[in-house]
Amino acid sequence: MSNYHRNVPDGSVTTPRGFVAAAVAAGIKQSGRPDLVLVTADRDCAAAGVFTRNRVPAAPVLLDRETLAANRAALRGVLINAGNANACTGEPGLADAREMQRLAATAVGAQPEQFLVMSTGVIGVPLPMARVRAGVAALAPLLKAGGGPAAAEAIMTTDTRPKRAAVEVDLPGGRVTIGGMAKGAGMIHPDMATLLGVLTTDAAISPDVLDASLREAVAVSFNAISIDGDTSTNDSIVILANGASGVAVGDGESRARFTAALTDLCRQLAQMIVRDGEGATRFVTLVVTGAASAADARRAADTIATSPLVKTAFAGGDPNWGRIVMAAGRSGAALDPARLALWVETTDSPPLQLVSGGTPTGYAEADAAAVFAAPEFTVRLDLGLGDGAAMLWTTDLSHEYVSINADYRT
Amino acid sequence: MSNYHRNVPDGSVTTPRGFVAAAVAAGIKQSGRPDLVLVTADRDCAAAGVFTRNRVPAAPVLLDRETLAANRAALRGVLINAGNANACTGEPGLADAREMQRLAATAVGAQPEQFLVMSTGVIGVPLPMARVRAGVAALAPLLKAGGGPAAAEAIMTTDTRPKRAAVEVDLPGGRVTIGGMAKGAGMIHPDMATLLGVLTTDAAISPDVLDASLREAVAVSFNAISIDGDTSTNDSIVILANGASGVAVGDGESRARFTAALTDLCRQLAQMIVRDGEGATRFVTLVVTGAASAADARRAADTIATSPLVKTAFAGGDPNWGRIVMAAGRSGAALDPARLALWVETTDSPPLQLVSGGTPTGYAEADAAAVFAAPEFTVRLDLGLGDGAAMLWTTDLSHEYVSINADYRT
Repeated sequence: MSNYHRNVPDGSVTTPRGFVAAAVAAGIKQSGRPDLVLVTADRDCAAAGVFTRNRVPAAPVLLDRETLAANRAALRGVLINAGNANACTGEPGLADAREMQRLAATAVGAQPEQFLVMSTGVIGVPLPMARVRAGVAALAPLLKAGGGPAAAEAIMTTDTRPKRAAVEVDLPGGRVTIGGMAKGAGMIHPDMATLLGVLTTDAAISPDVLDASLREAVAVSFNAISIDGDTSTNDSIVILANGASGVAVGDGESRARFTAALTDLCRQLAQMIVRDGEGATRFVTLVVTGAASAADARRAADTIATSPLVKTAFAGGDPNWGRIVMAAGRSGAALDPARLALWVETTDSPPLQLVSGGTPTGYAEADAAAVFAAPEFTVRLDLGLGDGAAMLWTTDLSHEYVSINADYRT
Repeated sequence: MSNYHRNVPDGSVTTPRGFVAAAVAAGIKQSGRPDLVLVTADRDCAAAGVFTRNRVPAAPVLLDRETLAANRAALRGVLINAGNANACTGEPGLADAREMQRLAATAVGAQPEQFLVMSTGVIGVPLPMARVRAGVAALAPLLKAGGGPAAAEAIMTTDTRPKRAAVEVDLPGGRVTIGGMAKGAGMIHPDMATLLGVLTTDAAISPDVLDASLREAVAVSFNAISIDGDTSTNDSIVILANGASGVAVGDGESRARFTAALTDLCRQLAQMIVRDGEGATRFVTLVVTGAASAADARRAADTIATSPLVKTAFAGGDPNWGRIVMAAGRSGAALDPARLALWVETTDSPPLQLVSGGTPTGYAEADAAAVFAAPEFTVRLDLGLGDGAAMLWTTDLSHEYVSINADYRT
C-alpha cells in the first residue's frame, strides 16, 4: 500500500469499469466443476503479456505471443479453460487454440485476433473441442459486471481457494482501478505447475507503457515465486487496459503510481499462490543481502528456495540453518564462508542471529525452534560481499505435497 | 564387467593387498554405533581425490585439498568420522581437522601430511575432540586386513546398508585389485547430502595417472548421481594406491583396463547409493540422447532428475511423461518440441514409445503404467537435434524422504 493506492474490498477482474466475466462447467475438468471462463471488455483494450520461457510452450502460449505481436492496441478479452493444458498436442493443439480464439470472438461480436486464450491442466491430451464449443455458447449470455469471483473459482486446478483482488489508485488526473485473478498451486517456486494471471484496468494507457509496467511488477511478484525459465509449459500473465476511467497513465508521476499499485496487486496475488502452495504448511520470506551482485543474490535465494533439504527442514519446523548455508554454497553465487550471517524472525519476534562469520552464534536452540515452528517467518542471509539483494517467497515440502503430486494424474 | 575385470566376492577397501582398516564407536553418533574409521596402507601410496565444489567447504575438505597439493606420492591412509560434518565450524574446525590428521599419523607412526581426513554428519557443531582422541587410540590396535566391512558400516549416516565392493583386473603385467566403500543416502542427486568414497588399490601407478583415472571414473559414476557443483559441504572421493601387487599401470592398454575397472567399481558403489537413497522406492535410469551437445544432454538429464514433480510422479508410479518433457523444456538445453521422442522400459519389457514428434503415441495406458509401477525402469528422451548424450541414475521423492529430512536433526 502507499498514500496513493489501496485495496478494493472483494476485488476481482470485473472491479474496474467496463469489464464483464462469466464461468461455466463445460465438462473439461473431471470433477464437473466450472472450468471455462470468458473475460471481456466493453471496448478495445491495450494489452501486454509475459509468458513462460519453457522451450516446450503450450499451444495457447504460442498463439498469445503471435496475437500480441500483431495487435497490442485493440484486444477485447481472454478465454480460459482449466482441466486441460493443450500442451504437447502439436499442430492439432494449435488449431484448437485458434478455434478457441474464434469462438470467443464470435460470442461477443469481435475479431479472432482480439482474443487471448489460456489453458491449464493435464498435458498431452487433445482439448475436448465439442465441449469447449458448447461451453463458449453457454458463456456469452452469462457475462456480467459481477462475474469476476466466479471466474477466479473456475480457473483453479489443484488450488484450494480462489485468488483475486483489486486496488484503486489516485493518479494526478483521477482515480483508476486495477483488478486481477490468478491460479497457481504447485510447489512454490512451482517448478512446472502452471501459473495463470489475468489483470484488468480501466486506466487509459499505451501498450508500451502497459508492457513496461507489467514487466516491472511481475519481476518482483509472480517472478519472485516462480516463472522466468523455471516454468511450466503454460505460465502466462496478461493485462488488459480499456481506458474506461478516462484517466490517462503517461510518464512520470502517473506512471510511477500506476506501476506501484500494479506491483502491489501482483504481489498480493503471488503471495496468495504461495500460501496456497500444494501441501504448504509454512510461508517463508527469504531475503538475501550483501551479495556481490543482484544476480548472485537471486541465484542464492533461488537455490535455497528450491532445495528439497531446506524445504523438508521447513516442513519439520527444524532450525537446520546448515542446509540453508550449504544451498547458498552450491548456488554459484560468490561467497566467503567467513562473512556469512543469518537471521530468522517472525512478525512477533525480533531478528534472532543464528550465524555470524560463518559459524553458529550462541543462540538458544529453543528460540530458533520457536521461529521455525511458526506458520510464517523470514530468513535473512547476508553474504557480506556487496550490495546485491533479492527477496523471494517460498514454502515447505510436506507429505501433503508428495501425496498431491504422486497421485495427480492417475 | 569386461573380459579383463570382474567382482571379488565380499569386496571392500581391505581386499587389495597391503591395506588394513578398523572401526570403533567413539561416541560421535548419538546412536552409539561405530563412527570412527581408520584405513591405512603398509607403505607409501600414490593418492588422488575429488572434492565438493560447494563454496562453503567443510574443514576436512580444505585440509585434504591442501594435503594432496603438497603430497600426492607418499600418503598412508585416511581417518573418517561419521555423526559430525565439521562444517561451518570456522578456524577451530580447521584446527580440529589438523588434529585428526596428527592423531592418525601418530597412531601408525607416520607424518601428519601423510593422512587425509573425512567427516560427515551434522553441521555447525564442534567435533567432540576428546572422543576423537580416545577413539583413534582405540583404533590402532584393531587395524586388520579383514577390517573393510566394519569400516563400510561405520561411515554410514542415514544410509540403511553399507556400500562396498572390489574388482580384480588383469593387466598386461599381472593382476591388481581395487576395493572401495561409499556412503550417501540423501536424495539421489543428493543436493546437499554428503557423499564419501574411499578407494584402495594395490596397483603401482603414478599420482598423475591415478588422478586422471579417478576423474574419468567419477565423471560417469558418482558424478552421474550427484556432486559436481550440486554438492554438500563435505563430498569427497579419494583413492590410495600402494603398489603392493608389483604390477604397474602406465599408459596405453594397462591404463585403459585399470580405468575401466575403476569406473565399473565406482558405478557399482554409486548405484548402491541411489538404491539406498532416502525413502527411495524407485531406481530410474535416465538417458538423454540426440542433444545438441553433451552439456545440453546433461543439463536436460539433471533438470529431469531433480524436478520434484517428476520425482513425485515416479513415487506414485504415474506415467506422467508430460512432466518429463516440461522439465527438459525448462532445462536450458536447445530443444525443438516437434522432434521430441520418449521411451520407457524395464529389463523385462521392450522399449515402449510414449512420445513421438512431441506428441503422445497411441500407447496403451496400462502398458505405460506397468513400466512406471516397476521398482526399476529406464526413461529415454531423445531430443532429435545432435549426438549429445548423458546417462544419470535417480530415484523418486517419497513420503519417506520427507519424513527422514523433516526430522533428521531434531
